[in-house]
Amino acid sequence: MKALLIIAHGSRRKQSNEEVVAIAERLKQHCSEQYKIIHAGFLELADTLIPEGIKKCVDDGATSIIVLPYFLNSGRHVIEDIPQIVNETKPYYPDIEIKIAAHLGASTLIMDLLVSSANAIK
Amino acid sequence: MKALLIIAHGSRRKQSNEEVVAIAERLKQHCSEQYKIIHAGFLELADTLIPEGIKKCVDDGATSIIVLPYFLNSGRHVIEDIPQIVNETKPYYPDIEIKIAAHLGASTLIMDLLVSSANAIK
Repeated sequence: MKALLIIAHGSRRKQSNEEVVAIAERLKQHCSEQYKIIHAGFLELADTLIPEGIKKCVDDGATSIIVLPYFLNSGRHVIEDIPQIVNETKPYYPDIEIKIAAHLGASTLIMDLLVSSANAIK
Repeated sequence: MKALLIIAHGSRRKQSNEEVVAIAERLKQHCSEQYKIIHAGFLELADTLIPEGIKKCVDDGATSIIVLPYFLNSGRHVIEDIPQIVNETKPYYPDIEIKIAAHLGASTLIMDLLVSSANAIK
């Protein structure tokens, strides 16, 4: 069973974190056939942290987990911090496949997203 | 003539800022018919700052400018800082229409972007 774990930076502003959780909830409706399990987590400053998020996916029955960095740029958090935490967590779940997707800014769809956001205010 | 001004946060890491400039460059190919002028700018920490970015658009012949916040969450930067700087800059260009688009996380396309990023590593 496939799981998606969206990882945002985490903010001291509660509402920002709630937005990420809400996006994970909406995503459940959007791709529930493909990914039965979807959770949101945070690199820092907010519950759920990455190891907890991975545990939630496993507890829900995940056999493979895609960690999806909810970041636009490939900064240190994307290149070093998230991979490091994921790699430290992997040994606890030797039977689970855990992969990290590219950050959102790397997607070709980012162009469509930019144009669509601009056009929405016309 | 319509212009798009992508505004990212700005980073001390030069490469992150260059990514935003590169996205603006790619966007020129993607929607040059609709938006003849496209520039990238930053809220802080990097050249070009917002007033400079608006000036670049005007110097290129823009008659209307859409400021596009390159942010995933609606934090203080999106809700307060960018609007404040844009509003302080508007009086210098009374004949130019300047609007601010929603942050990227507010787009319905964000769902497609998430799924596409996840699927890309399968």
